[in-house]
Amino acid sequence: MDPSITVDLYSDTITQPTTAMRQYMCYAEVGDEQLGEDPSVNRLQAMVADMLGKEAGLYLPSGTMCNQIAYAVHCQPGDEVIMDRTAHPLHFEGGGPTPLKGILVRALAGDRGVFTADQLTEALRPHSRYQPRSKAISIEQTSNLGGGRCWPLASIREVCERAHSAGLATHMDGARLLNAVVATGVAASDYASSFDSVWLDLSKGLGAPVGAVLAGSRSFIQEAWRYKQLLGGAMRQSGIMAAAGIYALEHHVERLAEDHTHAQLLAQGLAGLPGIALRPQDVETNIVLFDVAETALSGQQFVEHLKQQGVRFSLMGPSLVRAVTHLQIARDDIEYALQAVEAVLDSSQKNKGSKEILYSGFSS
Amino acid sequence: MDPSITVDLYSDTITQPTTAMRQYMCYAEVGDEQLGEDPSVNRLQAMVADMLGKEAGLYLPSGTMCNQIAYAVHCQPGDEVIMDRTAHPLHFEGGGPTPLKGILVRALAGDRGVFTADQLTEALRPHSRYQPRSKAISIEQTSNLGGGRCWPLASIREVCERAHSAGLATHMDGARLLNAVVATGVAASDYASSFDSVWLDLSKGLGAPVGAVLAGSRSFIQEAWRYKQLLGGAMRQSGIMAAAGIYALEHHVERLAEDHTHAQLLAQGLAGLPGIALRPQDVETNIVLFDVAETALSGQQFVEHLKQQGVRFSLMGPSLVRAVTHLQIARDDIEYALQAVEAVLDSSQKNKGSKEILYSGFSS
Amino acid sequence: MDPSITVDLYSDTITQPTTAMRQYMCYAEVGDEQLGEDPSVNRLQAMVADMLGKEAGLYLPSGTMCNQIAYAVHCQPGDEVIMDRTAHPLHFEGGGPTPLKGILVRALAGDRGVFTADQLTEALRPHSRYQPRSKAISIEQTSNLGGGRCWPLASIREVCERAHSAGLATHMDGARLLNAVVATGVAASDYASSFDSVWLDLSKGLGAPVGAVLAGSRSFIQEAWRYKQLLGGAMRQSGIMAAAGIYALEHHVERLAEDHTHAQLLAQGLAGLPGIALRPQDVETNIVLFDVAETALSGQQFVEHLKQQGVRFSLMGPSLVRAVTHLQIARDDIEYALQAVEAVLDSSQKNKGSKEILYSGFSS
Amino acid sequence: MDPSITVDLYSDTITQPTTAMRQYMCYAEVGDEQLGEDPSVNRLQAMVADMLGKEAGLYLPSGTMCNQIAYAVHCQPGDEVIMDRTAHPLHFEGGGPTPLKGILVRALAGDRGVFTADQLTEALRPHSRYQPRSKAISIEQTSNLGGGRCWPLASIREVCERAHSAGLATHMDGARLLNAVVATGVAASDYASSFDSVWLDLSKGLGAPVGAVLAGSRSFIQEAWRYKQLLGGAMRQSGIMAAAGIYALEHHVERLAEDHTHAQLLAQGLAGLPGIALRPQDVETNIVLFDVAETALSGQQFVEHLKQQGVRFSLMGPSLVRAVTHLQIARDDIEYALQAVEAVLDSSQKNKGSKEILYSGFSS
Repeated sequence: MDPSITVDLYSDTITQPTTAMRQYMCYAEVGDEQLGEDPSVNRLQAMVADMLGKEAGLYLPSGTMCNQIAYAVHCQPGDEVIMDRTAHPLHFEGGGPTPLKGILVRALAGDRGVFTADQLTEALRPHSRYQPRSKAISIEQTSNLGGGRCWPLASIREVCERAHSAGLATHMDGARLLNAVVATGVAASDYASSFDSVWLDLSKGLGAPVGAVLAGSRSFIQEAWRYKQLLGGAMRQSGIMAAAGIYALEHHVERLAEDHTHAQLLAQGLAGLPGIALRPQDVETNIVLFDVAETALSGQQFVEHLKQQGVRFSLMGPSLVRAVTHLQIARDDIEYALQAVEAVLDSSQKNKGSKEILYSGFSS
Repeated sequence: MDPSITVDLYSDTITQPTTAMRQYMCYAEVGDEQLGEDPSVNRLQAMVADMLGKEAGLYLPSGTMCNQIAYAVHCQPGDEVIMDRTAHPLHFEGGGPTPLKGILVRALAGDRGVFTADQLTEALRPHSRYQPRSKAISIEQTSNLGGGRCWPLASIREVCERAHSAGLATHMDGARLLNAVVATGVAASDYASSFDSVWLDLSKGLGAPVGAVLAGSRSFIQEAWRYKQLLGGAMRQSGIMAAAGIYALEHHVERLAEDHTHAQLLAQGLAGLPGIALRPQDVETNIVLFDVAETALSGQQFVEHLKQQGVRFSLMGPSLVRAVTHLQIARDDIEYALQAVEAVLDSSQKNKGSKEILYSGFSS
Repeated sequence: MDPSITVDLYSDTITQPTTAMRQYMCYAEVGDEQLGEDPSVNRLQAMVADMLGKEAGLYLPSGTMCNQIAYAVHCQPGDEVIMDRTAHPLHFEGGGPTPLKGILVRALAGDRGVFTADQLTEALRPHSRYQPRSKAISIEQTSNLGGGRCWPLASIREVCERAHSAGLATHMDGARLLNAVVATGVAASDYASSFDSVWLDLSKGLGAPVGAVLAGSRSFIQEAWRYKQLLGGAMRQSGIMAAAGIYALEHHVERLAEDHTHAQLLAQGLAGLPGIALRPQDVETNIVLFDVAETALSGQQFVEHLKQQGVRFSLMGPSLVRAVTHLQIARDDIEYALQAVEAVLDSSQKNKGSKEILYSGFSS
Repeated sequence: MDPSITVDLYSDTITQPTTAMRQYMCYAEVGDEQLGEDPSVNRLQAMVADMLGKEAGLYLPSGTMCNQIAYAVHCQPGDEVIMDRTAHPLHFEGGGPTPLKGILVRALAGDRGVFTADQLTEALRPHSRYQPRSKAISIEQTSNLGGGRCWPLASIREVCERAHSAGLATHMDGARLLNAVVATGVAASDYASSFDSVWLDLSKGLGAPVGAVLAGSRSFIQEAWRYKQLLGGAMRQSGIMAAAGIYALEHHVERLAEDHTHAQLLAQGLAGLPGIALRPQDVETNIVLFDVAETALSGQQFVEHLKQQGVRFSLMGPSLVRAVTHLQIARDDIEYALQAVEAVLDSSQKNKGSKEILYSGFSS
């Protein structure tokens, strides 16, 4: 927590556990998780499996590990996972399944994170000894680099049916699945039903400090356990952290609607400012992506000037900026942020000079 | 926590956080660890680095991940790590560096976990395109399957010097390093000084629920961060767990001496029982390994009968049994355990029959 | 050799060794190549290294192995090789460096196989622990799926300079490098001078039955030898095959000009036929790529009907057809082929019906 | 061929193709092997498959590639192959399946290359997420580092039955399988019948210059083809080399008996020389392993002095020397070699001094 930051829209990963959540964690019943003896971990795993309509769940220290394990279980070296070009493993997981297991990743040019069944069909490799094997698809709900867009249930069903009929496994990176659930009213189990593996993150909008739960069939989870052990994701009395997940699932799901309202408010405010490119109707959940190319500032400059005003955004491209609303962002914060943006744009307009471009990579 | 277990000597991994530790965790200051913004994690990393005399530290969810990352940083595919045949990665890490990075492991026939510089020299591969490259050594302090034996400082220095002069990196799996420190009076930094990478575990004798800290040079830790991200060990507000580590380092180190006293007490008691093979002088820290081959029971039977008496041991081989003392084991518990063993042996003597061998693998 | 094929334009990989080449092979002096004792292999390696201006050469059973080894030497798991989207490893090498060493491949949208230094710059990854490391570039001379286009020397120099200044290694897949040399008059060593590793194929236009030679610095070749051994590319009296390479380099280089003349002849003839899309000026060497989308036939049908006429083409996409001229194709064969195409198009025009699309993958 | 070597007992890999074999190769009918169009390759594959009683065969550039591919088809990353500690992949294949696919190798302490079914059983891993999966066994017929010892058919059957009943695949590295066949009179198909994959080498005792044929079920060979392509073992008009294999199978099998007679002759002669340790009854085929520890020379010195006398042996350990008889070794050569050894031993006895040990690794 940088004390100079008043409004932190960097990501929903930065949420602080609430006092009530901390109390709940403090008294959690725990045991050795590797031995299957942690009651809090066991309860969380069962809750998530149940919510997603799957046979079993597995608590893991991060969503990245959920992805890595799912790809590793579904694929062998030389197999290919198909996902959108915006997908998290392509940008934030250090190459992900490729260094870990020699798996290829095929990126589709979807629309804000959502690709079609026809795009999938076109990407399927012919059966040939000259080519990798198409083996799995992966979709991200909601799409982070797609601006928090929800994969429509119909699209999911069509894409997954296409995948299954071609013999591919289906995986949902549900880092922000519950944001989609709250935004659309579709049940998590409905979103999840077409997938062989799904996970949801506890440390993003839900506000728990650490962890994610991967779910699937019993045999899938049995194989996943091997990788949990191998990668070093098997912990001990992790029930303390898992308890935060339980608390979050019981208390922090419905309130995601507030984050969506705040994001919409921010989007509408930003859309009215000169030089900022953004369509408020594209903002479906808690992520607001906007382009500052038409302002007097580079993305890097924009982000830095705002930070000096106590408002933190994240930079997703040379002129692409992201704001994410979450548990610690109130309506007032949005207003504060909008005023700060307006002030920075005003001031930059006056000092218009050579626009310096310093961008050197996505933030996460 | 199985309520039917009165005295749990299964492992020091099963320790429950104390109430004071829970309170300390509850109020920990936290932030997003991946962004370097978690003050508790940062403080813990600095404490461990300092204690080990290294430039930097890295908090990870498990000791297994510390090993995996260290081997991955030191070695490329086709390189070989040399370690004792009892070493943890060979038995409990799912093949460890081999599936993760194509690294070979060479097992030396040391004495209760401790090998000599000459054994190392003999294992070094000639430079040849027909053979893997010898690239690193790994020693485990204390040796778990060596019965908690401490690597003598002189042995460490000789072995590491030999390794370095042959161009090999040196790694210490310090899962129970502080047990060695307390048992021998040698400083942790003295044990660590010959190593390029070292880690210590917070969730074993120290009694924290989760985590380990890997330490080394700044450039080593920078590379290690890449793997932390890749493997999914990068977390968020993990300061809550890290706080338990801080608390443990501040309050639970010196008390390891009690665990050693209890282990010695248990060893002497067991050594006096008929059919149990054990040399009390081999018990240097908190692990007691003993053989029940000369009793009327198989290892499996021994462990099960004791469990029915409320005492849990772990099975490490067909007739090899392990007890580990820890934070929740008091002197009374040792006495209780000894009486239970005596009763089980007595009773089995009377019902002596065909000794059934059901052993199917190490417990961890 | 299918006796029903009169004119085989499938690929220049199908060439038969000439009688003179066979005689030369028959009397080749040979030894154990793995021991460095095969004089013919040694001589071939030296010839190619010399021709390419490199310190050393390595005889390998295929060009695919040259690529695999070069990427493996230049990169570690999690590193990324940048190449054009048409490049051979992306389509014909079973996933190539990914299953073998966990290396990522980044595909650039070049123009008929040739990308620009700016495209390279844009693809370079920022230094970040969230992302793979950009580590090498690979260009294909001539570009097979680019229709045999030659990478201009100026482009090579600009791209390689850009790569080197960003710390990337440079690799040339010179499967048909000598076609470029003959077509442009640029010396092989001039094309090769910007590259850390280069290979040329003996079994394509040069007409030798088997093999390729990878060249680079002495230390590069020393590392390459490790992989030759590991992958099973170390052979014994392979001098018999290498002799064919020597013969080919001495007798079959200049004659590649004939293949280019024949390809141009074919291109001009095809361009005049109705429905065939092709720009003769794009045909720079011995490859003719053309599109049959505007004919009454699918690519599959086109290729099959022509085969029934004794003319074999290869199918490179749903409506994309390739012809390759080579040692066993004479001017008459081109005329025969053109007449056959004309006949097939005529006949299909008359029987115009539902155009069946059966395409199921590239041929090689 | 080093002209200073009169009698080359280094290995049977150094054989020169005979004039008749060269003539046969010279006129071989060939085609593009990757397209399945090389009649000589196809014929050789069928011959070997037939001889081994398998459905299909695959021509590959080396025996090492046969091993690599078989392990890769049978195993996934984290699986374990069990073989004798003397096995070729452990010493001469650069780490073999480990760098290529993350496969572990478990070495058994057999007797001169031959292990028992009970040793196998003992090495089987329990089903546990902490441990790799036992997945395949590999035996080497004859055992090279076992001194050319033949695996008895009964041992093979017992070991393979044990393996299959535990769900493991069985692989035979038949580099010198035909030596065993000729020495014992057991048919190749009888030796092969218990194995899921088998290969035999054409470039050792059989005297062909290059290549080996891997055989197994049709589905096994289909998968093997993927790896042949991936590793760069797919060639073009390799029928010229395959023809040598056909010739060798037709003309050079029975004559292996001569090599065995020569090896026995050499063994008996060596056994009578002072300081040389060797049991002639251990020499079953064409390999003679002997120890010079009790002479005045180190292994290195022994080999070098003999080389100066025009006789080449290979060094397999500090004092372990190997001689291999083959196609180009006649009875006279054995006598010449024995005289040279005697002379060297005599002379060294006179100049007895400090025995210098320079050994730095196995030769192959």
